[in-house]
Amino acid sequence: MEAGLGGPPIPEESMSKLNPGMVVGRRSALLGATTTIASASLVPYARAQGQTSDPLASWRDGPAKQAILDFVRDTTGPGSPKFVPPEQRIATFDQDGTLWVEQPMYTQVVYCLDRVPAVVAKKPELKNVEPFRTVLSGNREAIAKLPMRDLEKILAATLTGMTVEEFRDEAKKWIEAAQHPRWKRPYTELVYQPMIEVLSYLRDNGYKTYIVTGGGQDFVRVYAERVYGIPPEQVIGTAGATKYGYGKDGKPFLTKEPKLLLNNNNTGKPEGIYFMIGSRPNAAFGNSIGDREMLEWTGAGGGRRLEMLVLHDDATREYAYGPARDLPDTRVGTFTPALYQEAQKKGWTIISMKNDWKRIFCAS
Amino acid sequence: MEAGLGGPPIPEESMSKLNPGMVVGRRSALLGATTTIASASLVPYARAQGQTSDPLASWRDGPAKQAILDFVRDTTGPGSPKFVPPEQRIATFDQDGTLWVEQPMYTQVVYCLDRVPAVVAKKPELKNVEPFRTVLSGNREAIAKLPMRDLEKILAATLTGMTVEEFRDEAKKWIEAAQHPRWKRPYTELVYQPMIEVLSYLRDNGYKTYIVTGGGQDFVRVYAERVYGIPPEQVIGTAGATKYGYGKDGKPFLTKEPKLLLNNNNTGKPEGIYFMIGSRPNAAFGNSIGDREMLEWTGAGGGRRLEMLVLHDDATREYAYGPARDLPDTRVGTFTPALYQEAQKKGWTIISMKNDWKRIFCAS
Repeated sequence: MEAGLGGPPIPEESMSKLNPGMVVGRRSALLGATTTIASASLVPYARAQGQTSDPLASWRDGPAKQAILDFVRDTTGPGSPKFVPPEQRIATFDQDGTLWVEQPMYTQVVYCLDRVPAVVAKKPELKNVEPFRTVLSGNREAIAKLPMRDLEKILAATLTGMTVEEFRDEAKKWIEAAQHPRWKRPYTELVYQPMIEVLSYLRDNGYKTYIVTGGGQDFVRVYAERVYGIPPEQVIGTAGATKYGYGKDGKPFLTKEPKLLLNNNNTGKPEGIYFMIGSRPNAAFGNSIGDREMLEWTGAGGGRRLEMLVLHDDATREYAYGPARDLPDTRVGTFTPALYQEAQKKGWTIISMKNDWKRIFCAS
Repeated sequence: MEAGLGGPPIPEESMSKLNPGMVVGRRSALLGATTTIASASLVPYARAQGQTSDPLASWRDGPAKQAILDFVRDTTGPGSPKFVPPEQRIATFDQDGTLWVEQPMYTQVVYCLDRVPAVVAKKPELKNVEPFRTVLSGNREAIAKLPMRDLEKILAATLTGMTVEEFRDEAKKWIEAAQHPRWKRPYTELVYQPMIEVLSYLRDNGYKTYIVTGGGQDFVRVYAERVYGIPPEQVIGTAGATKYGYGKDGKPFLTKEPKLLLNNNNTGKPEGIYFMIGSRPNAAFGNSIGDREMLEWTGAGGGRRLEMLVLHDDATREYAYGPARDLPDTRVGTFTPALYQEAQKKGWTIISMKNDWKRIFCAS
């Protein structure tokens, strides 16, 4: 299956965003991920070690690479008039479509769909109830047509109602085994090598790097340290409440509740950053309208800032969508014309995957 | 006024906790704080520098000091069977009554009461509306009798409805000028020197130190780095939502909203820690029933953990309350008999201010 590159166009009205911040592509290879526990996952983050003397070795020379180098020079060079003290250096990164592949659908949504059989095994009464019946059928066309309220039911059923440790263990097992339907590799190997280099380069220059994702905070925290070198407390994502309680043995535990605390998309990104970090980023990286407000708020801080947007314009090596519409816009990662115009007006830097990146993935 | 050490006993039914986590003492020197901008505030945190060879120099030898030394030896010593990798070392500290004075009332509540005239100046219609009229009257007896719902109105009116920068600037100005009614010193000088040493000692041994307070996250973040060496992103507190919007010039800003996101007391402490950090502390320090669940959850993690409770039993140098009831329990910092029993049963270490601390304050 060629990762949603064929099929009918998607009606505009189906492009709305899904709360809590996790969106599914209409033309996706639903349930296409295989979960073979045997497949060993590599460690992409480690590949940023042993780098050459060029900290951005996977970047072609050009305005995008230069924007990053200039920003670091201006904000960290001793004596620079735009010097930022080390303890104030913060850089935020969207995940889906900015740090790793988001097509044909958000990895976490694949996870939730894959979890449905286990949920139904525990609650057999759901077997003949929608939307679980449709997901169990494996009928991809039907799954792709599920309305938002049904997808929300699936997210709630698969991401809540267990202890935080149970969730972590399940998600860890899945992410180590699941494979992307196009490349037949673990999702964690479909991380963008040039962005791993940016993360390392900024950290080497005193920046604290954060993931600021519309995806689930708990989900991304499971692998972020291993894959991106970003510890759990520096992952900000869409998050639900937990509830403190006691087991029969008197031992306390936290249960994941179906109550949204932080919808970390759009305006939720600057709100979430302020809530979690308490200060404004110096640099922000995104790829879709969900990142617009994060970049705006970053830029409004005054002084030297950096705002960058990844443009998916490489249908050969990855995908082309958004302004590069080989792949018609889906509900995944919408880079709208309005966002493109705002970026140009405000001097945000567009990263062309096709032109700026020598290499796309950590796995190659 | 001698900081609430006289007066009639408090009825038990008035000891309930105030949402959102900020509690006022019934017998307090309400509005007793003076705000003289001229008073320069010292920098207590700096005093932990230049320490002697004893990292806990202000601690007397005894079980409390030894518990801290043993914990660090066990969890950081190379080859220790209970070794904790550096990236997993987390220590959490309650603030009020654990890191600084909480009597006669929580500093942030003093701030809110002090802010009332400015709020009324902007909204004159509040002048004759309760509870603002009572606060403006300066009648301490009447203020002390305000019911919870009125205190909540004061908190909402004084902590929300402004941009996050406006709040930060106001709070910063206040905390640099306000003085404690008993010691006539800035509140930030009434930080416990022995606890500053614990913070530094743990950090020197690879621990990431967090404040986990029922007080306002935004408020504590204003001074936590200067006073405790703890950056904003490592302050977890009771927090409200913010709202992203645009000014007439098109510039985005965040406004503090009267909507509670995190009530960071009691069960809210482990829930807040999980939300913000994503992992369980190795060590936790508190002083009241509001810290009970944080200590329980820490202890339930298995492996080597440390749970400590500060007991206020020094009426001469500070205050005596809780199990040392020279000062009858107020709604501030309730160390109940049940908590004392749980501490003994679970092997939590009690820190006696009177016996364990050579010196109480950073300012001396």
